Amino acid sequence: MIDDFQHVSITCRDLERSVDFYERLGLRVIKRIEEVTEQGIANAFQLPPSRLKVVYLAPPQAASKLFIDLVQWLEPACTGESYPVLNHVGLNRLAFHVSDIDAATAALRPRGISFLSQEPQSFGPGIPSIVTTDPDGVFVQLIEGL
Amino acid sequence: MIDDFQHVSITCRDLERSVDFYERLGLRVIKRIEEVTEQGIANAFQLPPSRLKVVYLAPPQAASKLFIDLVQWLEPACTGESYPVLNHVGLNRLAFHVSDIDAATAALRPRGISFLSQEPQSFGPGIPSIVTTDPDGVFVQLIEGL
Repeated sequence: MIDDFQHVSITCRDLERSVDFYERLGLRVIKRIEEVTEQGIANAFQLPPSRLKVVYLAPPQAASKLFIDLVQWLEPACTGESYPVLNHVGLNRLAFHVSDIDAATAALRPRGISFLSQEPQSFGPGIPSIVTTDPDGVFVQLIEGL
Repeated sequence: MIDDFQHVSITCRDLERSVDFYERLGLRVIKRIEEVTEQGIANAFQLPPSRLKVVYLAPPQAASKLFIDLVQWLEPACTGESYPVLNHVGLNRLAFHVSDIDAATAALRPRGISFLSQEPQSFGPGIPSIVTTDPDGVFVQLIEGL
């Protein structure tokens, strides 16, 4: 019935600012939907008629076909702030697999990606992990192993 | 550097209630971490020492290795409510691929899964989609094609 995950969607305040962030993180734009008025989405989500800008991004070498559906709502406009803490109820964190977390953090810092902790932190059976936040404050975790 | 998506995390108020929902949706529990005190997570996310219950779930036949990391925080406790609308800034929606959306909705309704619209809605180039919410109000979309 459910075959697989298909995508995760992030509502962002400024599409180009977020695209820039995820590109610096190493993802690639796989599709741009410049501006769309979407009655189907409005019906499906019980929203008023919607106008939005959309970009899909994915890691370039990923085996999964998953992507981020990055959405800037124009009408109705984006509202609110992302969850401020990890223990806030809701879809709260997106985790990417990296093969070498030290190499990844060393490569990402010069691209302006900053992390919540100075060094990767280990949890469970010694799994190293480090966390950044996207321009809207969405928690994005890099994780080696699991 | 980033190889692939690894998981998405949902903070829930009641772990068993949410496990029941995602199992009815067709996912399977792939790991249970009954209760863990995790200094590494606390350090990585700049939280006080954390105590949490965790269950991993995934679609049983999925080609991707992605999973949902379902977390009930015990200390610090879960806080807040999930985003009430789709245009709320943040990681806002999780989408699953289904091969036949009419068959999926027909199979899921008797399991107590209710949808925001009576029928699947089409968007873009005729892609049918329907939306439910998990017990904490997280938007979960079923989508055929893309």
